[in-house]
Amino acid sequence: MATSRSDESPSVAELHPSLRGRIDLACEPFDADKLASLAKVAFLGLPHTASLEVTPALRARGVRVIDLSADYRLKDAATYADWYGHTHTDPEGLASAVYGLPELFRSSIPRADLIANPGCYTSTAILALAPLIAHDRIERTGIIVDAYSGISGAGRSPKPAFHFPEANENLVAYNVGRHRHTPEIDQVLTEVGRSSGDDPVEVIFTPHLAPIDRGIHASIYAEPKGPAVEHDLLDLYRSYYAESPFVRVVNHPPGTKDSVNSNFVDMTIRVVRGKILILACLDNLVKGAAGVAVQNFNLMFGHPETTGLL
Amino acid sequence: MATSRSDESPSVAELHPSLRGRIDLACEPFDADKLASLAKVAFLGLPHTASLEVTPALRARGVRVIDLSADYRLKDAATYADWYGHTHTDPEGLASAVYGLPELFRSSIPRADLIANPGCYTSTAILALAPLIAHDRIERTGIIVDAYSGISGAGRSPKPAFHFPEANENLVAYNVGRHRHTPEIDQVLTEVGRSSGDDPVEVIFTPHLAPIDRGIHASIYAEPKGPAVEHDLLDLYRSYYAESPFVRVVNHPPGTKDSVNSNFVDMTIRVVRGKILILACLDNLVKGAAGVAVQNFNLMFGHPETTGLL
Amino acid sequence: MATSRSDESPSVAELHPSLRGRIDLACEPFDADKLASLAKVAFLGLPHTASLEVTPALRARGVRVIDLSADYRLKDAATYADWYGHTHTDPEGLASAVYGLPELFRSSIPRADLIANPGCYTSTAILALAPLIAHDRIERTGIIVDAYSGISGAGRSPKPAFHFPEANENLVAYNVGRHRHTPEIDQVLTEVGRSSGDDPVEVIFTPHLAPIDRGIHASIYAEPKGPAVEHDLLDLYRSYYAESPFVRVVNHPPGTKDSVNSNFVDMTIRVVRGKILILACLDNLVKGAAGVAVQNFNLMFGHPETTGLL
Amino acid sequence: MATSRSDESPSVAELHPSLRGRIDLACEPFDADKLASLAKVAFLGLPHTASLEVTPALRARGVRVIDLSADYRLKDAATYADWYGHTHTDPEGLASAVYGLPELFRSSIPRADLIANPGCYTSTAILALAPLIAHDRIERTGIIVDAYSGISGAGRSPKPAFHFPEANENLVAYNVGRHRHTPEIDQVLTEVGRSSGDDPVEVIFTPHLAPIDRGIHASIYAEPKGPAVEHDLLDLYRSYYAESPFVRVVNHPPGTKDSVNSNFVDMTIRVVRGKILILACLDNLVKGAAGVAVQNFNLMFGHPETTGLL
Repeated sequence: MATSRSDESPSVAELHPSLRGRIDLACEPFDADKLASLAKVAFLGLPHTASLEVTPALRARGVRVIDLSADYRLKDAATYADWYGHTHTDPEGLASAVYGLPELFRSSIPRADLIANPGCYTSTAILALAPLIAHDRIERTGIIVDAYSGISGAGRSPKPAFHFPEANENLVAYNVGRHRHTPEIDQVLTEVGRSSGDDPVEVIFTPHLAPIDRGIHASIYAEPKGPAVEHDLLDLYRSYYAESPFVRVVNHPPGTKDSVNSNFVDMTIRVVRGKILILACLDNLVKGAAGVAVQNFNLMFGHPETTGLL
Repeated sequence: MATSRSDESPSVAELHPSLRGRIDLACEPFDADKLASLAKVAFLGLPHTASLEVTPALRARGVRVIDLSADYRLKDAATYADWYGHTHTDPEGLASAVYGLPELFRSSIPRADLIANPGCYTSTAILALAPLIAHDRIERTGIIVDAYSGISGAGRSPKPAFHFPEANENLVAYNVGRHRHTPEIDQVLTEVGRSSGDDPVEVIFTPHLAPIDRGIHASIYAEPKGPAVEHDLLDLYRSYYAESPFVRVVNHPPGTKDSVNSNFVDMTIRVVRGKILILACLDNLVKGAAGVAVQNFNLMFGHPETTGLL
Repeated sequence: MATSRSDESPSVAELHPSLRGRIDLACEPFDADKLASLAKVAFLGLPHTASLEVTPALRARGVRVIDLSADYRLKDAATYADWYGHTHTDPEGLASAVYGLPELFRSSIPRADLIANPGCYTSTAILALAPLIAHDRIERTGIIVDAYSGISGAGRSPKPAFHFPEANENLVAYNVGRHRHTPEIDQVLTEVGRSSGDDPVEVIFTPHLAPIDRGIHASIYAEPKGPAVEHDLLDLYRSYYAESPFVRVVNHPPGTKDSVNSNFVDMTIRVVRGKILILACLDNLVKGAAGVAVQNFNLMFGHPETTGLL
Repeated sequence: MATSRSDESPSVAELHPSLRGRIDLACEPFDADKLASLAKVAFLGLPHTASLEVTPALRARGVRVIDLSADYRLKDAATYADWYGHTHTDPEGLASAVYGLPELFRSSIPRADLIANPGCYTSTAILALAPLIAHDRIERTGIIVDAYSGISGAGRSPKPAFHFPEANENLVAYNVGRHRHTPEIDQVLTEVGRSSGDDPVEVIFTPHLAPIDRGIHASIYAEPKGPAVEHDLLDLYRSYYAESPFVRVVNHPPGTKDSVNSNFVDMTIRVVRGKILILACLDNLVKGAAGVAVQNFNLMFGHPETTGLL
């Protein structure tokens, strides 16, 4: 079942002509009862706050939820209120939600009935930094995440900044110092670092727009604790992600095009004048959104993690 | 003086950050009296019908007008009503307007006080076909104008079709058989052909969007009357445009990039299996709009035709 | 088994970093005996003339061949010599090759042991015109195929015309009147038209480059025989392709982006001022090359036609 | 006079079709005597080491030189040898060369007879950091320059990485930790900082390719000495560049598109979680190469600095 919040009921193929001949489903108004009678799980692709309205209704009817919005990502309701400007209305959901980044929380996902599917910049930064934080190899503040995203990251609503003649041939930073993925990166990395200390992680995150459809490129700089040697660090990464089929630790600087249209995240690591530099790429619409949602679904329902994704 | 129809009064540099440091002018509300006290000429960059309101007021105050809208291009008010869905409210203006394509109407422009600046596809098609029509070398019907435009041709208002992730990496036809530049092309070429007969010119015009900022590429097919030899036709074109500094008749297929950011129109001619093929390019924002407006201004005020344009 | 003509033996994943984690195969030198011991079929992605050397060796060893080059497409060896500048050295292969366009030759493919996989522009033009030619609804000469291709159509070898700063933001025609897909289009459409007459089909084909990775857009103009009505023609197309799962006859002008990364070909049909206009799109690397090769493979080996392609 | 190192003697308009109708000059072989008889100044657009051969010959004949290569930029011949792999063969030239960044060395340029025109990344980073270094407001090590360039920065020779289907839709780092603009940035900023101390400046510089024709975007992170307040820093920048007509200190994050095709460099400054972030953009072919060369020429020959550039 596909639902739409608009009054019209277009077929999915009308909304996305590329899907014609592949899917024969019309959008219908959201109806929690009907959905519960048809489905064991719902993927929510809603703006934040809209998920807060729908999720409790679904869970009350026994439908497990994979929420692609930001509504259940921040564990602290006050932080949510600060960054999103709304009071969180579902504290119970918030408490039970599992953060849907399988590479870090694989064991908690199978029994979750509410998955907070991560943000796209967030997944890139977290996966790129987790091995260093987990092993206490870098300082937890002063970490710089300089990242560029393809314009599909901005959604489907046309706005001046995404109008082709404005966005094309342009590179530009936005939301400097106040992008909402910041507290999400901080929170998850702080959790990852808990085993080696309680100091919170704090990233300086600068998002930019680049004239590509899809893909995120993050160049991440951190101050090492102790000596840093490239091949040791590459080994650390390979070992950390040995069980993660979608993380590719490579020797060359990865390009966004290598992972686009796939669920892979590519990364490499360098030491430059004493700083550690991690270069990481993924497709914001796949590993950064819909693909990891399917990966979570696979884990929730006992399918092999890569089903439908390779 | 720069005017704006919005309630805010931004500076030109705020609207177009690239102009910061180049122009120090704030937009103000339109005021015909004030404008008449400051200027001898107004360039109107308004949507159609809006020019109809402003033009008579300016001309009544002695301000000459170069109108970049479609309002004064179609000589026949009924045709205007058919294609634009509005009654034409300034028949006197329509009667006295000069079509601002200097390559064809250079002698009429200096004394004009109302210039109908041509459409972008229109200029491309007309300039590419004029030598053949004027010399009666092709059939006047069945002419195919298959043209692609950069997305700036659609204006500055964001719409789904021009949203970067939709428009990028896409080629698509639009307004097939009903683009409003069609009657304009027909009308001007029919006038060009008058010396050798009254048969109207009728083009089959298909516009497409291509993921470039600027530039029009037209591939135009026509049926020759009598034998057609490439080098003769190239000679004909060179001779026809010998006095036109912005027409470059070239031997190679021109690319849009050759003329972008310039007031040039590039064209070449081929004979393929008995059909004549003209390939023509120009920048829709320069030779197709603002550049030719300056060219018209130069002619109106006795400056060399290329002033400010080379 | 993957083979390479270079002296190095890179892994496929090194050549195409996007395939890392998906395929674990190293390129090795071509060896017909080894290949015959391992495989029942070979996909040849070689330049023309190179296929002529390899194909007989494979067929002699019982390996069926799907050849993506142009070497077995033109039935007449003299035409091949004219357009490719080489004598055809495998007349037996040429005689037994089946043209691998399943929509037209589906019944011949299962028993073929040599498939001439069609060109990308070719498939677009042929599929767009076949219903009209087969039903004798258009004149067979004067057909105009005005087509634009993404730059992957030019292969992987860097050349000045495909250097990013040259190709980006540019639209340009090339090989005007002499592109090698011309005789292939003529030949196959002439064969399609045989049921209603022996007059050869002759297209005027103009290829252009557009700054997109993949996709072909063809705007095709033909003179109808008798009256032409859009909805009748759409019905004719839907009926003609009723059994073809990869042809999508749509009502709107298709964009290249709708079919990119898929094996679909999208098309619609219009009547403009008495001319028939067909708009057709496909992905030159999928339906125009590798995808249709898999479709042929499916038919040759008794798999459902869509296996691996939907 | 235009010279070429190839054996052919194409006209400039053949090499650059966009210049047809604008310049009527054919390339000829380099001849120092002839050049000296015609010109007082030569602009050298040569690869490094090639300038070393030509410059002494020109200067010996009284021709002033504006060298766009890297040959005279690094003051220390040993550093040059380290980074470029060649011994420097013109120590006298090196000693007398003036670094051609007018915003910093305006007073030395008029009497220079050899200008080392700066690199494109270099100018971006230096101009973005100079006010902070000059006023001793930041730590001199640990400065991060995370920069993206349009692909014209790679020159006109086609290579696989710049082939349209590789470069398009891709973001990728290259020459990580070893780009040759690194020592140039260090050297000039160290010189700028001399007034407040001898500690050398050392940047961590990561260049990336982005799929745009032109433009550099640099996001630069530095550790403040003492408190950092955005509006104070903006004031500092405005004051520092008060006499520099091509530096635009803006309040918004600048996009590359704002300065493309112009000689402007745009920059703004932010404080994020205690770090200073400077965002700076310029056109690598204009302010980063040919435009600043003209600016230098203007200063050398007593013309207003902006002649031909606004």
